[in-house]
Amino acid sequence: MKGDEIFPKGFQAATASAAIKKPGRSDMALIYSQVVATAAGTFTKNLVKAACVLLDMERLKKGNAQAILANSGNANACTGQGGLDDAIELSKELSSTLGISEDQVLLASTGVIGQRLPLERMKGAIAHLVKGLSRENLPLVAQAIMTTDTFPKIAYHRGSIKGHDYRIYAVAKGAGMIMPNMATMLCFLLTDLAIGYDQLKGVLLRAVDKTFNKITVDGDTSTNDMVLALANGLAGNPVPGSFELEDFENGVGKVLRELSSMIVRDGEGATKLVMVKVIGARDPQDAELASRTICNSMLVKTAIFGEDPNWGRIMAALGRSGCMFEPGKVDIFIGGIKVVENGLGLGYKAEESAKERMRAKEFEVLVDLKMGKGECEIITCDLSFDYVKINAEYRT
Amino acid sequence: MKGDEIFPKGFQAATASAAIKKPGRSDMALIYSQVVATAAGTFTKNLVKAACVLLDMERLKKGNAQAILANSGNANACTGQGGLDDAIELSKELSSTLGISEDQVLLASTGVIGQRLPLERMKGAIAHLVKGLSRENLPLVAQAIMTTDTFPKIAYHRGSIKGHDYRIYAVAKGAGMIMPNMATMLCFLLTDLAIGYDQLKGVLLRAVDKTFNKITVDGDTSTNDMVLALANGLAGNPVPGSFELEDFENGVGKVLRELSSMIVRDGEGATKLVMVKVIGARDPQDAELASRTICNSMLVKTAIFGEDPNWGRIMAALGRSGCMFEPGKVDIFIGGIKVVENGLGLGYKAEESAKERMRAKEFEVLVDLKMGKGECEIITCDLSFDYVKINAEYRT
Repeated sequence: MKGDEIFPKGFQAATASAAIKKPGRSDMALIYSQVVATAAGTFTKNLVKAACVLLDMERLKKGNAQAILANSGNANACTGQGGLDDAIELSKELSSTLGISEDQVLLASTGVIGQRLPLERMKGAIAHLVKGLSRENLPLVAQAIMTTDTFPKIAYHRGSIKGHDYRIYAVAKGAGMIMPNMATMLCFLLTDLAIGYDQLKGVLLRAVDKTFNKITVDGDTSTNDMVLALANGLAGNPVPGSFELEDFENGVGKVLRELSSMIVRDGEGATKLVMVKVIGARDPQDAELASRTICNSMLVKTAIFGEDPNWGRIMAALGRSGCMFEPGKVDIFIGGIKVVENGLGLGYKAEESAKERMRAKEFEVLVDLKMGKGECEIITCDLSFDYVKINAEYRT
Repeated sequence: MKGDEIFPKGFQAATASAAIKKPGRSDMALIYSQVVATAAGTFTKNLVKAACVLLDMERLKKGNAQAILANSGNANACTGQGGLDDAIELSKELSSTLGISEDQVLLASTGVIGQRLPLERMKGAIAHLVKGLSRENLPLVAQAIMTTDTFPKIAYHRGSIKGHDYRIYAVAKGAGMIMPNMATMLCFLLTDLAIGYDQLKGVLLRAVDKTFNKITVDGDTSTNDMVLALANGLAGNPVPGSFELEDFENGVGKVLRELSSMIVRDGEGATKLVMVKVIGARDPQDAELASRTICNSMLVKTAIFGEDPNWGRIMAALGRSGCMFEPGKVDIFIGGIKVVENGLGLGYKAEESAKERMRAKEFEVLVDLKMGKGECEIITCDLSFDYVKINAEYRT
């Protein structure tokens, strides 16, 4: 599809290189809405929060924003008051160049923790960014926010409310330190729908809880996780009532689901994407405990990498998860093949078939606890040599 | 030291091969006390418990035992009633060959989950084991219970209570699926001290909590963890009062501390042993949450493997641990070098010095939260290519 068909109205973007990590690589991005947009966000639950997270949480209290300035290569986390001052100075520079009020600027950073931003170089890039703003540049944002990501992550949706067409366009980055507890790394969702703040925030939180909060690469929650949503109203629709949000809510859910599975697929070193679904738990909380523990087990993840239907490791992870169940009732399916029935392995032949299914790039692990109706699906990836390589060498 | 000086009186052992995993490899061990011994144990908190765990928990209710039959290569876990029947049949065969009562036999297994034991081959080995019993064979037990361990783990202690010399001799195995929650994998502690059941159990639980329960290789708790202690009284001492146990308690602590650090040092693929000590937490529970989360973070573990003093990952792990603290107060030392003060990095030079210290095989990470007096030290290892290799290929 062409940009005209997928970009929401009134949004522009530009990217630039400020040599934050490597010279020449695009590492700054600006997103700008021609009019003030309703804005909502959701942020990391990590107690250690980056300067941009602290700043945005404060600025979003008023429920609107007009620009997002993002950088990769440096997280501006654990940088204390100095880091916060840097963030404020950047937003001042941008707001005066754009001619908008300072509190209309949101910031987002991702990269190494504990280093100060190269402030002068970044300030120097701002005029260039503002000058370069165009609708066609929106896809470049996904590239500029990448760190160890191997591909840019973009998803979009077109919908209609009461005869008014609107568009959702979103970009994200992921790769490592991924077990979002609220949001993941960075995601910016732009829409031209006219919508109230409470509605936008509600839709966003519900969608994030079902998507970004249900993926894990390595069980580590970042200090910089954030999802920002800007809705500038240029679709021209009348602000919808609560009962008219279904189409938009589905659209946001679809877009964030696509982005979150892209993040897992692009997990550091990942070779496989696995949906771990636990059903029949006493309640959804128990199902989530079980699914999350299986997903984060290093032994399960290495078995997936080795294409070994080692269900004993799944049982062991279940058993330490804190989820209540009876071991003698558990059924386990790998790639659709039942390998455990009532807690007992079904033998060599079933495992050989499951092993065959594990050769695929994507498959499901289904665990039925037969205790109740609680369900949860979390998406994860395997643990490969390359995860170790990337993370033993990152920074050096 | 010679066996005579380190072996407690009245204990004998033998090992054999039943081709449980590979033909020719020693994979069964028998420990026998010439007299009925006071016996206590502590077992995995994993909800999924192996047949031997279920059997031993029941048999230890009476507080004594005379023999331990152990095997490696097969965990006899997730094997249902059939697996429990196998365990009972093995213990029947052993008790009748030894001429002791069946409930004096304890069992221990370690290895692959979900496969039935090769019962006939194991029963066939029992006569051979009983015939081979000797004092000099005690060290062979450590070898026979190894799975992916690369060296046998033995520790001992000589002490004296009221003029009576006694000895403690213990063996353990570890390697993977190591985040004991009660005990770790297998450990058998033998002593000739005369001691009451409640005393032995108390000493054992306190020591295990400080040692095996404070190590982690990969955050996975096994289905077969157990520590068994046999005290046969042949040292001839009068049963000590509660206030006379200090020497023994110190001895047990020392022996288990040695074994638990051997287990981490021999963690699957481990190249480094790291003591992660959190001090200044609000309370010991908070300190343990913080320390355990740092120890189990895949990003921290790969940074240790890469000898990268990446304290940002330590801060991020702290922040998601659930421990309460103020980011702006945290100090972090790596190998004795302060790299973070009041939440801020101390720069390149400090990190270069820390990097130098990380070249060592063993070093400490010290985190001071300055919130209170809670402390906890957990011992862990790094995450290397070989961990992935071992666990992607194990079983296949």
